[in-house]
Amino acid sequence: MALKLPFLSNILSWFKKDTWSGALSKVLPFVKRGEKRVLELPSPRPAQQDEEVSKQYQNHACPNYMDLKMHFRDIGRMNAIVETLGRDFLTAMPEGAYKSRLSQISFLSRRLHEDLANEKIAGLIEKAHTHLHKCPDEWDEWDKANLHEMEVMYRHHCKVNPDLMEKRAHLSYEGRRRHRAVLRDNDWDSAKGFLQEMIDLQREIAESKCLADNEHATDAPYQALMREYIPGARIADVDVLFNDLRTQLKTLLPEIMEKQKGEAAPASLDGCYPSELQLWLNKSLLSLIGFDFERGGLYETGHNPVEGGTPDDTRLVIKTSDQGNFLQSMKSALHEGGHGLYIQGLPRTQWRYQPVGQDLGAAVQESQALLVEMILGRTKSFFEYLSPRVEGLFQDFGAKSMSADNLYALKTRVKPTADRKSADEVTYFYHIDLRTQLERKLINGKLKVKDLPEAWNAGIKERLGVKPKTYADGCLQDVHWFVGKFGYFPSYTMGHAMAAQFYNKMNRDIRDIPELLRSGDFMPIKNWLNDNVHAKGRVMRTDDLVQDVTGAPLGADSLIGHFEDRYLRAA
Amino acid sequence: MALKLPFLSNILSWFKKDTWSGALSKVLPFVKRGEKRVLELPSPRPAQQDEEVSKQYQNHACPNYMDLKMHFRDIGRMNAIVETLGRDFLTAMPEGAYKSRLSQISFLSRRLHEDLANEKIAGLIEKAHTHLHKCPDEWDEWDKANLHEMEVMYRHHCKVNPDLMEKRAHLSYEGRRRHRAVLRDNDWDSAKGFLQEMIDLQREIAESKCLADNEHATDAPYQALMREYIPGARIADVDVLFNDLRTQLKTLLPEIMEKQKGEAAPASLDGCYPSELQLWLNKSLLSLIGFDFERGGLYETGHNPVEGGTPDDTRLVIKTSDQGNFLQSMKSALHEGGHGLYIQGLPRTQWRYQPVGQDLGAAVQESQALLVEMILGRTKSFFEYLSPRVEGLFQDFGAKSMSADNLYALKTRVKPTADRKSADEVTYFYHIDLRTQLERKLINGKLKVKDLPEAWNAGIKERLGVKPKTYADGCLQDVHWFVGKFGYFPSYTMGHAMAAQFYNKMNRDIRDIPELLRSGDFMPIKNWLNDNVHAKGRVMRTDDLVQDVTGAPLGADSLIGHFEDRYLRAA
Repeated sequence: MALKLPFLSNILSWFKKDTWSGALSKVLPFVKRGEKRVLELPSPRPAQQDEEVSKQYQNHACPNYMDLKMHFRDIGRMNAIVETLGRDFLTAMPEGAYKSRLSQISFLSRRLHEDLANEKIAGLIEKAHTHLHKCPDEWDEWDKANLHEMEVMYRHHCKVNPDLMEKRAHLSYEGRRRHRAVLRDNDWDSAKGFLQEMIDLQREIAESKCLADNEHATDAPYQALMREYIPGARIADVDVLFNDLRTQLKTLLPEIMEKQKGEAAPASLDGCYPSELQLWLNKSLLSLIGFDFERGGLYETGHNPVEGGTPDDTRLVIKTSDQGNFLQSMKSALHEGGHGLYIQGLPRTQWRYQPVGQDLGAAVQESQALLVEMILGRTKSFFEYLSPRVEGLFQDFGAKSMSADNLYALKTRVKPTADRKSADEVTYFYHIDLRTQLERKLINGKLKVKDLPEAWNAGIKERLGVKPKTYADGCLQDVHWFVGKFGYFPSYTMGHAMAAQFYNKMNRDIRDIPELLRSGDFMPIKNWLNDNVHAKGRVMRTDDLVQDVTGAPLGADSLIGHFEDRYLRAA
Repeated sequence: MALKLPFLSNILSWFKKDTWSGALSKVLPFVKRGEKRVLELPSPRPAQQDEEVSKQYQNHACPNYMDLKMHFRDIGRMNAIVETLGRDFLTAMPEGAYKSRLSQISFLSRRLHEDLANEKIAGLIEKAHTHLHKCPDEWDEWDKANLHEMEVMYRHHCKVNPDLMEKRAHLSYEGRRRHRAVLRDNDWDSAKGFLQEMIDLQREIAESKCLADNEHATDAPYQALMREYIPGARIADVDVLFNDLRTQLKTLLPEIMEKQKGEAAPASLDGCYPSELQLWLNKSLLSLIGFDFERGGLYETGHNPVEGGTPDDTRLVIKTSDQGNFLQSMKSALHEGGHGLYIQGLPRTQWRYQPVGQDLGAAVQESQALLVEMILGRTKSFFEYLSPRVEGLFQDFGAKSMSADNLYALKTRVKPTADRKSADEVTYFYHIDLRTQLERKLINGKLKVKDLPEAWNAGIKERLGVKPKTYADGCLQDVHWFVGKFGYFPSYTMGHAMAAQFYNKMNRDIRDIPELLRSGDFMPIKNWLNDNVHAKGRVMRTDDLVQDVTGAPLGADSLIGHFEDRYLRAA
């Protein structure tokens, strides 16, 4: 795939913008005292018969970089294997395999870490950099970006004790089950101890990273964690975006609610929507938006919905257990479908497994998910496509609740809730804001786990005026902290704002999106996303991508504009 | 689990019986010229919170042996991961992930090989042996057997080039798909090239092993391959068993067929048996025989039936696509169920992942599978249990074809076929005999791939007087050679004979097995198998186990006796 890349200056500036200090040789991998760790991996082999000769295997003037590509290919394979083990864990694995599977996953995560955080990799990266400086003409944008991303990955791992990585993998998968149990039993007491253990571990990991980066500000550990999900993100930039949204929503939200007061409340869904038909519906909608079932699938789970995998094997996992509300599983399917399109659209054939072939992290991921789920998936025209079809599928011709108008009204009703998952698009920000502020304090030590329920309830009351009835309805509702995802939450709001910016630009590039949605033709949209976002992998930084595609840096205005259009101006 | 082990002399004699020559230090791992491979694995860690303190983690007076246990635990984990990737490959994986999955599996297989075939492991094994000789009282039977099995694993890998292991894993999984395609298209031309590649690879691997063992006889390479499946088996012993069966069947088979000539032919199944009901039936039968769905499952595939996994996660994979014959999928389920009981009954909590905790290989595996499928699963009393229930399940009360007598007659009708899978219990031997002789010649070079169809057709004609109509009905029918399993076939006949010996002994130990089967009470049988076979892992050699349990070495007489009882003496 030949991409025109009019941003060479941006790429060159990465190395200036780099916030790390010191040469790589000073950032040697974590080695226990008295312990010598030498890892010799097999030397690179020629492309195998089943691999097309892609950029991954293409010869390069710098043999050390070739070596690195083979090392990172194998690291990428291990990552893909962990993903498959994790997806199997959620879908097909028998319950009794739980403990041994946790050990297998954490074992492999440790090996992956050790393959990455060693002196050989550090040495190769330094040598490749030397070559890059000597012979810059031999390096194209993708190779340069690939080398940079290798260094980023190395730096994220090098100072962290492998024991911590093994424990993190273990706790993360254990946390998924724990969360299901504490949620079912509204069991704060048992949650508390687990969260404490998880937070202690995350802080220890974060502090190892900060030490490596010579950063010691209060929020540096939180920022270090956040950057695992949102590469290069700065907590200061997050604050600016959130403050702006907070300010603008302060007047906008009451206006919207006032307007909706005058409108009739939508009719609730009142049929029975069998799980297997919901699954069929969701598969069909995913096919419609261009998700390739040849290279992926939609699976059921008893756990929380999740997406993941590689462009060759992208698995979306949802629940369809609520037989009284097909919109619930559809929301998950569209959300995970947005992620899925991104994963499948990555530069697979050229850069499979290489760092530059990966997605840009959680903020861009969520932009794709929320664009499909919230921005496109809640348009009136999409419901005009959907309505007659669900009347047929669920055998209820003329059902009032399934009319396009009613479905639209149901999904655009703005009403503060205690629950993030059933939140409308406008109040959604407050849920993210609350979690972001709380997790920051949990990591920087200003909030103790035992005080979390109180802080949560005060925070949601202050923001939305609602009060959770139970722990499960409050601070236990999300799986994120249980799987160790501290620093992930900001990506929802960053992604939502980014999605609105992309949507604005897309509306200028593609004629009559509403008509396309009404007729079920998602292809021009999918192609736009493929070309403008997915196929770029990590060749650009997130901020450069947003600037390049939308002509402006990431900000709140497009999202606010979208809210005004949909909730104030529309009929 | 405390086992009484009255066979110390047998265990001590292993080391005498050992057919390898030379000290381990002379059998150093394969290292490419000019290439220094140093592998340092993390030092052993204490038991993790989720692992019970089992023999695997129990302290031992020999620290080198403790090291080995941790190395082999990790190798066991990698094996388990490869199993999971393989099961997923057959059941849930999207088609488009095919190539990258092949690469992931072969990559991990290579790593596994490298973790095993290195100087560090060799050194540790030698040191542990020294300790064993100095302080024999510190080593119990299980530890001794475990160390021995470690050495066996090492010796099987040490001389083999990692490239070959990687290629073998790749070809094996590719072969599963290839086989499906050539079978569907009756495509000998495309099969030929693939088989040639596979055989060349197998011979290269076999010859590396022979070199290590200083064995150069004609069938040494074949025997080396066979021993991967049937540890310690000798081709000479296989010949004795097969010759004996051949001789006795020469008179017995015509007698049986003569007797059956006088009986009315059974009615064929003539209903429609929906796949999902077949799956339900098979799951229910597996539950009945004691397969634990908490630690395993039955899954559908478009490929050939297969079993595998670990005692924590035992996955049986079958096809239920033939809606005109539920006996077909039931046969697979019972067969794989016999394997499954064995895997789940291994000493999981004590020796998970350790070599001594593994099964005894293909011959004992097939004894368990054929005992359930053919010996128990074709008794009149089992069909008396089954008949009324399938009449209900498939909604056909009083169907003549589903009467107990008719089901029994269908499954005990002796009639030569070209097809192994639909073969009766008596002519089954000839199918195995044919394949064993052919694969031996393919490996020792006396038969060329291009001449295989002719040799096959001549062989089946000579043995059973039948002629395959197509390649698919002839030399392409089995998946084994396509997945590289050369040397596996003898285990079916060895297992069948062993199953008959076990069944004889079981009948002396358990009162009225027919009545138990008639009432659907399989527990005494399962417990007998657990105690006498499964729970022993690899603490005894196969020949010692057979002698110990049945009081006689493995031979043909019990199987011939079983045929006489069932096919000549029964009403």
